[in-house]
Amino acid sequence: MDKKLLLHYQDLKPSRPDFRIIGVFNPAVALMSGQTIMIARVAETPLAADRDHVIVPMVRQKQYTFMKIPTMDDSYDFSDARVIRNHEQSYLTSISHFRVGRSHDGYHFTFDEKPILPETMYEEYGIEDPRITKIEGRYYITYTAVSSYGINVGLMVTDDFVTFERKGIILPFDNKDCVLFPQKIKGEYYAYHRPSTSDFGKLDIWMAKSTNLIHWGDHQVLPSARISYRPSVRIGAGAAPFLTEKGWVVVYHSADSHNRYHLAALLVDKDNPAVVLKRSKAPLIEPSELYEHEGFFPDVVFTCGLINHGKKIRVYYGVCDQNIALCELSMDELWENLGPVT
Amino acid sequence: MDKKLLLHYQDLKPSRPDFRIIGVFNPAVALMSGQTIMIARVAETPLAADRDHVIVPMVRQKQYTFMKIPTMDDSYDFSDARVIRNHEQSYLTSISHFRVGRSHDGYHFTFDEKPILPETMYEEYGIEDPRITKIEGRYYITYTAVSSYGINVGLMVTDDFVTFERKGIILPFDNKDCVLFPQKIKGEYYAYHRPSTSDFGKLDIWMAKSTNLIHWGDHQVLPSARISYRPSVRIGAGAAPFLTEKGWVVVYHSADSHNRYHLAALLVDKDNPAVVLKRSKAPLIEPSELYEHEGFFPDVVFTCGLINHGKKIRVYYGVCDQNIALCELSMDELWENLGPVT
Repeated sequence: MDKKLLLHYQDLKPSRPDFRIIGVFNPAVALMSGQTIMIARVAETPLAADRDHVIVPMVRQKQYTFMKIPTMDDSYDFSDARVIRNHEQSYLTSISHFRVGRSHDGYHFTFDEKPILPETMYEEYGIEDPRITKIEGRYYITYTAVSSYGINVGLMVTDDFVTFERKGIILPFDNKDCVLFPQKIKGEYYAYHRPSTSDFGKLDIWMAKSTNLIHWGDHQVLPSARISYRPSVRIGAGAAPFLTEKGWVVVYHSADSHNRYHLAALLVDKDNPAVVLKRSKAPLIEPSELYEHEGFFPDVVFTCGLINHGKKIRVYYGVCDQNIALCELSMDELWENLGPVT
Repeated sequence: MDKKLLLHYQDLKPSRPDFRIIGVFNPAVALMSGQTIMIARVAETPLAADRDHVIVPMVRQKQYTFMKIPTMDDSYDFSDARVIRNHEQSYLTSISHFRVGRSHDGYHFTFDEKPILPETMYEEYGIEDPRITKIEGRYYITYTAVSSYGINVGLMVTDDFVTFERKGIILPFDNKDCVLFPQKIKGEYYAYHRPSTSDFGKLDIWMAKSTNLIHWGDHQVLPSARISYRPSVRIGAGAAPFLTEKGWVVVYHSADSHNRYHLAALLVDKDNPAVVLKRSKAPLIEPSELYEHEGFFPDVVFTCGLINHGKKIRVYYGVCDQNIALCELSMDELWENLGPVT
């Protein structure tokens, strides 16, 4: 296992002169024509914020607009630096977009100038945590669309990572951590997703099926994806699943009640991804380096993509909701990490 | 407008000798071979509960099981008589199933002996609030499936209201108030649904599309369905939409922050149910009778079905989460209730 910090948030330029970047993280990755393509989430915050005001950035009708909230206004709860709430609405103090990077070696990325910005009414507060899956020659990108209409899962498709076509909301709120399987299984497309914020339900991984990638149904929970070797209050699929001789491998995240993250893996049935065959018996990747422990949101390791190179895999992941790291591990290390589902 | 109390919860017998019925309410209705068919939600609670214990009824592997919680156990919150919570889970103190009734006049119903009981892992805490839509000759029933896996929308189909085939979870948690449109629009099936429990989203009506009634996508919110003439914290589609010369009519509910309900109506575009043409300018049906004001949950009027008889409609609705009422109103009354979307 070999870890390195790949990209620091200050390596990119803000999308606007009146913004500063606070994080470049949670990247999706894919292979195209021998290159590694990365779509990084870039979180920005307005420079105009001062001690007496919080500025909430939003996109409406494809234009950035700003809401200035006096920090003296006690109808708002300012206790979380990232989210501001009043009795009827939550707002974000930063807004995320996507940036496309390209690399010949998988380590050094050159980023396109042109950002992928929030556009639709469902993306008013930003677009977050993309995942890429190549299906039948096209690249499908699931992502989190955040707005006053909730945290929904959106879908885009691209052939070149230059132009992107939005395909609407595929899973209604609150839902995130949606990954698509790269091929049909017995005639249907498959996805994992993570519904959340329920009076009753827990934060589990769910499976869904589709015949056209747009309409999803037959939702089934995977209770056996819950980790058992340490406390966990939520899990969610990370990288798009990849097929091996033993079944599908899915790298996913788990967080405890103190928001300490680690990455684990599932081996699921080749023909039925609702059946978990094996599961990590210990963390696969967990914070160990200084850059994983210290940052905007400490001890977060969050993957949205990996590249399977056969004998080894390269897991790209966000660290501390701020920067991007890479962990290379051998398939042997992965198999050794898996144990029975108890 | 003519209202009457149609069915009292004590008119039905419990499904088990150790249960008592606490509500027969929120009925779906449909026409079949000249008869009005009703599927009523029946909420039951175990007789065994005493002052010192709350009994939580659940269905596991098609068997009722019971969890006995001492009321002295202060890890639980007993403040809501309907829901018991501890730090990691919510439970219901009653469990609902469905009962099928048949009527020749739409007023007097004879109920089948055999109940439709909760069966799947998603129905552990019960099945609630059915809606029937006849599509291409078959009767599709959307319903709320409640379990420790959240509040999900399930689908059943029947040809005779004797045998019912479950088609799985069509919308993941938390979601309810799902109604299907009775015919394809431009080649696709349509539904309204109501995602809920979000950090960001409000409790709005959403639309979704499908090609097979199982897989749903292209989710779009209808912000203009929100009522404007009085406070409202949540709305949700009630009866299945019916087509008129002017467009689709949808009767829906609205509740304020004190859980005072009323029913309103939408007129939406014939070819695009995301477009609201007209909306109630005042409550269409609101609590006025003693049986609507007083009961298990006061001032609740909640419809899951209506029958369109051409010049008049019969709206069947639950009152006070306890009994079933009927309101007959003319189409003229309905049209007069509608005003511009402001």
